[in-house]
Amino acid sequence: MKQKAEVNRVYTNNIHQQIQFADQKREFNKRPTKIGRRSLSRSISQSSTDSYSSAASYTDSSDDETSPRDKQQKNSKGSGDFCVKNIKQAEFGRREIEIAEQEMPALMALRKRAQGEKPLSGAKIVGCTHITAQTAVLIETLGALGAQCRWAACNIYSTLNEVAAALAESGFPVFSWKGESEDDFWWCIDRCVNVEGWQPNMILDDGGDLTHWIYKKYPNMFKKIKGIVEESVTGVHRLYQLSKAGKLCVPAMNVNDSVTKQKFDNLYCCRESILDGLKRTTDMMFGGKQVVVCGYGEVGKGCCAALKAMGSIVYVTEIDPICALQACMDGFRLVKLNEVIRQVDIVITCTGNKNVVTREHLDRMKNGCIVCNMGHSNTEIDVASLRTPELTWERVRSQVDHVIWPDGKRIVLLAEGRLLNLSCSTVPTFVLSITATTQALALIELYNAPEGRYKQDVYLLPKKMDEYVASLHLPTFDAHLTELSDEQAKYLGLNKNGPFKPNYYRY
Amino acid sequence: MKQKAEVNRVYTNNIHQQIQFADQKREFNKRPTKIGRRSLSRSISQSSTDSYSSAASYTDSSDDETSPRDKQQKNSKGSGDFCVKNIKQAEFGRREIEIAEQEMPALMALRKRAQGEKPLSGAKIVGCTHITAQTAVLIETLGALGAQCRWAACNIYSTLNEVAAALAESGFPVFSWKGESEDDFWWCIDRCVNVEGWQPNMILDDGGDLTHWIYKKYPNMFKKIKGIVEESVTGVHRLYQLSKAGKLCVPAMNVNDSVTKQKFDNLYCCRESILDGLKRTTDMMFGGKQVVVCGYGEVGKGCCAALKAMGSIVYVTEIDPICALQACMDGFRLVKLNEVIRQVDIVITCTGNKNVVTREHLDRMKNGCIVCNMGHSNTEIDVASLRTPELTWERVRSQVDHVIWPDGKRIVLLAEGRLLNLSCSTVPTFVLSITATTQALALIELYNAPEGRYKQDVYLLPKKMDEYVASLHLPTFDAHLTELSDEQAKYLGLNKNGPFKPNYYRY
Amino acid sequence: MKQKAEVNRVYTNNIHQQIQFADQKREFNKRPTKIGRRSLSRSISQSSTDSYSSAASYTDSSDDETSPRDKQQKNSKGSGDFCVKNIKQAEFGRREIEIAEQEMPALMALRKRAQGEKPLSGAKIVGCTHITAQTAVLIETLGALGAQCRWAACNIYSTLNEVAAALAESGFPVFSWKGESEDDFWWCIDRCVNVEGWQPNMILDDGGDLTHWIYKKYPNMFKKIKGIVEESVTGVHRLYQLSKAGKLCVPAMNVNDSVTKQKFDNLYCCRESILDGLKRTTDMMFGGKQVVVCGYGEVGKGCCAALKAMGSIVYVTEIDPICALQACMDGFRLVKLNEVIRQVDIVITCTGNKNVVTREHLDRMKNGCIVCNMGHSNTEIDVASLRTPELTWERVRSQVDHVIWPDGKRIVLLAEGRLLNLSCSTVPTFVLSITATTQALALIELYNAPEGRYKQDVYLLPKKMDEYVASLHLPTFDAHLTELSDEQAKYLGLNKNGPFKPNYYRY
Amino acid sequence: MKQKAEVNRVYTNNIHQQIQFADQKREFNKRPTKIGRRSLSRSISQSSTDSYSSAASYTDSSDDETSPRDKQQKNSKGSGDFCVKNIKQAEFGRREIEIAEQEMPALMALRKRAQGEKPLSGAKIVGCTHITAQTAVLIETLGALGAQCRWAACNIYSTLNEVAAALAESGFPVFSWKGESEDDFWWCIDRCVNVEGWQPNMILDDGGDLTHWIYKKYPNMFKKIKGIVEESVTGVHRLYQLSKAGKLCVPAMNVNDSVTKQKFDNLYCCRESILDGLKRTTDMMFGGKQVVVCGYGEVGKGCCAALKAMGSIVYVTEIDPICALQACMDGFRLVKLNEVIRQVDIVITCTGNKNVVTREHLDRMKNGCIVCNMGHSNTEIDVASLRTPELTWERVRSQVDHVIWPDGKRIVLLAEGRLLNLSCSTVPTFVLSITATTQALALIELYNAPEGRYKQDVYLLPKKMDEYVASLHLPTFDAHLTELSDEQAKYLGLNKNGPFKPNYYRY
Repeated sequence: MKQKAEVNRVYTNNIHQQIQFADQKREFNKRPTKIGRRSLSRSISQSSTDSYSSAASYTDSSDDETSPRDKQQKNSKGSGDFCVKNIKQAEFGRREIEIAEQEMPALMALRKRAQGEKPLSGAKIVGCTHITAQTAVLIETLGALGAQCRWAACNIYSTLNEVAAALAESGFPVFSWKGESEDDFWWCIDRCVNVEGWQPNMILDDGGDLTHWIYKKYPNMFKKIKGIVEESVTGVHRLYQLSKAGKLCVPAMNVNDSVTKQKFDNLYCCRESILDGLKRTTDMMFGGKQVVVCGYGEVGKGCCAALKAMGSIVYVTEIDPICALQACMDGFRLVKLNEVIRQVDIVITCTGNKNVVTREHLDRMKNGCIVCNMGHSNTEIDVASLRTPELTWERVRSQVDHVIWPDGKRIVLLAEGRLLNLSCSTVPTFVLSITATTQALALIELYNAPEGRYKQDVYLLPKKMDEYVASLHLPTFDAHLTELSDEQAKYLGLNKNGPFKPNYYRY
Repeated sequence: MKQKAEVNRVYTNNIHQQIQFADQKREFNKRPTKIGRRSLSRSISQSSTDSYSSAASYTDSSDDETSPRDKQQKNSKGSGDFCVKNIKQAEFGRREIEIAEQEMPALMALRKRAQGEKPLSGAKIVGCTHITAQTAVLIETLGALGAQCRWAACNIYSTLNEVAAALAESGFPVFSWKGESEDDFWWCIDRCVNVEGWQPNMILDDGGDLTHWIYKKYPNMFKKIKGIVEESVTGVHRLYQLSKAGKLCVPAMNVNDSVTKQKFDNLYCCRESILDGLKRTTDMMFGGKQVVVCGYGEVGKGCCAALKAMGSIVYVTEIDPICALQACMDGFRLVKLNEVIRQVDIVITCTGNKNVVTREHLDRMKNGCIVCNMGHSNTEIDVASLRTPELTWERVRSQVDHVIWPDGKRIVLLAEGRLLNLSCSTVPTFVLSITATTQALALIELYNAPEGRYKQDVYLLPKKMDEYVASLHLPTFDAHLTELSDEQAKYLGLNKNGPFKPNYYRY
Repeated sequence: MKQKAEVNRVYTNNIHQQIQFADQKREFNKRPTKIGRRSLSRSISQSSTDSYSSAASYTDSSDDETSPRDKQQKNSKGSGDFCVKNIKQAEFGRREIEIAEQEMPALMALRKRAQGEKPLSGAKIVGCTHITAQTAVLIETLGALGAQCRWAACNIYSTLNEVAAALAESGFPVFSWKGESEDDFWWCIDRCVNVEGWQPNMILDDGGDLTHWIYKKYPNMFKKIKGIVEESVTGVHRLYQLSKAGKLCVPAMNVNDSVTKQKFDNLYCCRESILDGLKRTTDMMFGGKQVVVCGYGEVGKGCCAALKAMGSIVYVTEIDPICALQACMDGFRLVKLNEVIRQVDIVITCTGNKNVVTREHLDRMKNGCIVCNMGHSNTEIDVASLRTPELTWERVRSQVDHVIWPDGKRIVLLAEGRLLNLSCSTVPTFVLSITATTQALALIELYNAPEGRYKQDVYLLPKKMDEYVASLHLPTFDAHLTELSDEQAKYLGLNKNGPFKPNYYRY
Repeated sequence: MKQKAEVNRVYTNNIHQQIQFADQKREFNKRPTKIGRRSLSRSISQSSTDSYSSAASYTDSSDDETSPRDKQQKNSKGSGDFCVKNIKQAEFGRREIEIAEQEMPALMALRKRAQGEKPLSGAKIVGCTHITAQTAVLIETLGALGAQCRWAACNIYSTLNEVAAALAESGFPVFSWKGESEDDFWWCIDRCVNVEGWQPNMILDDGGDLTHWIYKKYPNMFKKIKGIVEESVTGVHRLYQLSKAGKLCVPAMNVNDSVTKQKFDNLYCCRESILDGLKRTTDMMFGGKQVVVCGYGEVGKGCCAALKAMGSIVYVTEIDPICALQACMDGFRLVKLNEVIRQVDIVITCTGNKNVVTREHLDRMKNGCIVCNMGHSNTEIDVASLRTPELTWERVRSQVDHVIWPDGKRIVLLAEGRLLNLSCSTVPTFVLSITATTQALALIELYNAPEGRYKQDVYLLPKKMDEYVASLHLPTFDAHLTELSDEQAKYLGLNKNGPFKPNYYRY
């Protein structure tokens, strides 16, 4: 039994390496990466039961190399409107989904509340996301709310085949498997939207590829589409560009920038994942270490708070004087990178900028210095500058390279400068739950909004919905909200049910 | 020498008691209070040299009860265009101003930068604020930037007579003294605006009384007025009401809600002043105490962080689910007040709401429980409900009352439910410096804005100016900002000099 | 009413100035100072009711300059065996004692438990301590436990006359008043011990003067004395010297070094009082300030933790490599003072050493640097070196001096280098309660110990008693201790009632 | 390359499973376990270069199942006085040792200082420890200091064969391999001590088996033996028993209880490893979680501090009132386990006691509650009580079991109740360095001590040596110690070079 668990780990790590690879390739192709800050994460690896491990190993050891596109499969109800690796793995996938359900109480609460009215009745949603147990809980929730769904994967490596099988078995037309080719990728998307007798009226996208495909191939579909919900930084960026260019022809909801999601994905999540990522890769001790954190936004704030709490001495670099002043008041020396580069034990980038750590900086670091990136892409550390003949690279562990200078100095580079927390730690299900709930509510809002509330523009989630997402997650902490009395609500000029803050409120 | 210092303390405390009293009276009169969150503070008491103490005692022991309005005074240059308590106190006031200058490097830097160009050249500013050494540094900075200024006090008790004298001696027409009557108050304001051959073109207000007076008496003046800069919550509220009613006839700048000011006045300042206020009044030990903090906005966040750090066990109540979820993630049990009211040692309100702590709550508190308010007004604790015959009030120290139940139970009520940090602690000069700098920059912006940039509306300080205020305060911390390279600025799509963040950024 | 409160403050501050003065004089006389780390504190000022304020002012305004030694006073029961300022103040003192009783639940619990057996029955205790409301609670507890007590003051300024009167009224022979002369001091002590028909069998001392007096004048008394309980660092030092010299002729209990007392007096108390002392004297903001703390013992650890939590950047100096390594692991840069002296905003000494901050250091500090001492005496900062003609001293507040260099640089010196927390903050009653309880238990232990358990040596409080003191204070925090099962006690080889740790355990 | 790294992980994990298993078996045999708090840990897995991975996989794939005892091997210098798996792996082992040397600067400094004098010249040390790269650095340091060494493994699974080969190649007679039988184990030890013409005069033991063997087989050897250095809790326990029984015939040094080791192994190390262990096993989020920590000793203090810093709400249980009061002052609610067992998300035991978490507690926990042990053995949680028919165990990951109640409730049990940080996280090399340095210094002290300094008893490391260990580790943190001036040393009554504290000092 133990052996299987181990195999599972190998399997999981492989997924990641491949995804990272995929990521890189796309960057090379100058196309925007589709992996946002935490869209995938090791949550995929959270498949965590023996039976699943078995499933995993079964899959791996499978000699069946036939492309799913070439297979004829039907689910137990006789439907063949899907394309997955192996419909027989459905049972294993169902187990995974059931476990995820336990950790996503907000979506389950939504299902319960929707037993009477079906707020998505009549909705025809086409979705393109990572296909994991958590996504499955979202898809089945949308179904329970009344929607019809068709789904493809937003990444060629990130599908859990067993989960896809389980969804297909339950009647959701899913087109996705692990290890798609580029051609497969677009074929799957096309199979979702190009259906006789069915036309989507809502889009749920993660990265913008689905949206892009419809724009390119079926622009007329937008006549019936009520809105787009987009989660990733990249996808949102594309939507704003469309909007700027006057080409956005339906309302779109930017769920990436909702308060709840931002605070959880960045501040709270990074506060934990920076420690986790560093420990899993280097087994280092934090106490007494000197660390420089580049950037004091939400991610930087989380990293700094965690490391300070663990006894590290933290320096901060910033370009924005307001964030800089916050760093000062929070007890961090604000420096330029050059001032401390010779003395620090760890360098962490969280800027979203490029070439924050240059070859010159790397040349000046001391022996054993650890360098990693928590920002939004792999541009922050100039890793390319290290690919020169006089430097030797030594892979000492998965995600850990020693780069060795001619004089023997070693720099420890993590995840080749890609996102540390995406590559080397995990995203808690709790955070995934917040995102999925936000997506569901955004779909409900756009679908049910009265004519004219939303124009052909990109919108943030209404604050009241943001508050609702938060409220659905409070029971997890056994947290008891206070209600305003009528008198108090009147005094404050607020509705008792919110929204409770002006739009510019900073939390 | 020591005795003088002591007298000075007495003097200072008296000021506060009187200000508080004034505050209450105005509330009773149903007029909005003019004292914002931290407008006055004990900074007045920061006058801190022997000579000043002498001045203070001199003033106090003065038998001169003639009203300043009835006196004929001239400064050393022969001007009589002012009305202060005693022009002879100018020298003492100058000492105070010089000490304050050392602690307000940002304004001094502004003066330096303005040696060449005079951005306020031609500006005629009428001001109405507390008149303290810090304000004097602001007024003289405005002068150095090219402005003509006339000034009155925004509070009948908050003028430091020596500082007013020093300003008058330096040629600033100041009309203000400590202990004005209501009639004096309006007379002083009128003397600032109703001048032959001089008409203001800018207003700097704190509380809105000056603005109100001009609206009422000299509405035509607004034709020449380029803008209003308002600092207080109350004054801003009045401006928004005017704007809503379509009666605002010039642009107004709300400097109260600038990022820098908000974070310093609330989060960072309260983090320190909650401890200070509790210690100075009760000498209590924080370690192991159970505390409930009502409200988890910026003020509540500051209070909670400080008390947790000192070893208290902190519970939080909230009405907003987003703030509630933040409290959870920051490690505080989210409860309803009723759940913990019997067990806590301290109750702190930070909601801005009314009747958060009711008589019923007070009845259930345990013996010795301390109750205080850090929110924006004295409505949060229902103090009035304690003024019943069966309860005995015992004043045990300045700002500390024991309210005694028939069974002997004592509740320790601080500052009669008014702002603890206004009443019982201090506002660091550093925070005053941020506010004064923000006011100066807002005046410069409004005065120099090209026609049409600002309409007849209430504006937030442009982010770039907010950032500039922050940058002027970084040298205090020997903090070194990083500059973007051209390449990085291009990559981020930012100007190298800012602004660095979108407007919705939450910091 | 307010005015009285203010007068009370003046009165309190005067006490302190005088005590400090007394302190210095004694140092000059090369006699060990009798004021330990926190023996007195502003707890004296915690007398906090209106009536007490009245009492205080009454006392002050009293024209009665007759020496108490020359007065004939009797209490209401007709006894004249005491000597206090004014027996008529007893009622006010009783109020103070009653309030203190509420805050010293451990002693009250001891009284309750002793209702049946009287563990001090037959004990004749002569005591010499500060005479405050808290001491009165201790003395009356000893009485309730069966002891006869006679009491003098250990400091010529620290007696609260009203409390002394209340004790005398209740029948305790007290000889003490505020403002004794040196001659009065020893006369009072003598009146306690030199009584016809009464000979002490226990000594409770604070500073060693009482012990010294008996050694010198009545050495034969030691034949009947069962033991000495000594609280102060100085007194303990004297006892160890006696012991070393072979002259200690009874067992002595060093209660200064008990675990509970040490942790509370040093780590936990200083964690709070460093903030309090700095705020009350300078109103400074902690956030972003650079601070160097000299010494990382318990006091230094407390100071560093508090300032770090408030957002200061803290550097540490140490001579002991183990404490130094602790500082590193706790996240502080370990430096030599010279490395940071030019850049820090605050210098705090906590070493117990002398000349830690020299004139050379002071010369190099930056303008506005604050210098203060939290260590055990006023030797840590070389204040004497600042008394040179080229430097100007300016007293800007009570306990705050500006020392001004010829170039205008100002150093802010607090409490003239004496203990900041003794001079400028308070000692919570909770800490006083722990000390008093420890003293009571030490007396019980020594008095009841079987022949031979204690030899003529200095002992630490038995760990079991130390644990008992702690357990008596747990109810204050509503803390629930777990009890060992028989099986568990056997497994651990422990008695179910403790002691729970080996003697070398470090907590 | 990646694949190899993965294989390495599997390999490493297998080691652990086997060691754990070995551990359990011994417990079953009622013999004291030889694995102390952190003696082994995943440090073994820190072998972290590609080449090493290769070595590992090479070893694994080896078909050579011949017992090392049956092989004839010689190193390159022709010596055959060793017994390892495969001498040809020496080169790989040397790489590992070289990397470890970089992380153990204190031992390297010792070597440097010993270039002139050889403090262990003439020492004949027989050692029995885990054989890892870190141990190799220790052994070779002892050699550099002048000692002759012979070495065996203290655990049948913990030898890194490559490292053993490298030591043998360098001329150290090592008798050890991974996967010894019980018979092999004692044979190896015997080969170390039973040598013609060589008799040990020093013992370095970890667990007491070597000492036991000599007592049993070669008691006469003790005539020449100068002392024993013992590191483990178990071994120290055995020595104290021998001493109590009057059977200890040489001095022994208990290095387990040195200050530096204790603080690092417990407080600082656990502060990090609790987070690491929980994350690696469960990927949980700490923020907002309710946790109960049983026991507030050094380990509990570390766990509580870390979890509080990460935003968990922490409750503490204690039996010792002093530790309980510390918990209160540090801001934790002190409860009995029963009070919170229904509501907490995590239960952590750190008591060293048995049956702290009983079946009854487990029955009352809520669904999903995580249970783990950070204390000294696997007795704290009554795991045996969960082996009943109505409960289902599901192994969901390595070291993670779901125990499922009939109603579907799942408890997440980590490491089957064994030490979480031993099983599921790592021990930083820095901590191993402190231990190894302490061992080396203890050997030097015992070997060079003048006749009579040490009797036939168990001693703690002299404080001065403890301080020396600390000082050797300060350079890692670029920490600069302050030196006492002559005048200061005299004032304090200290030697300038230490020791700096009395023995009872608590740090």
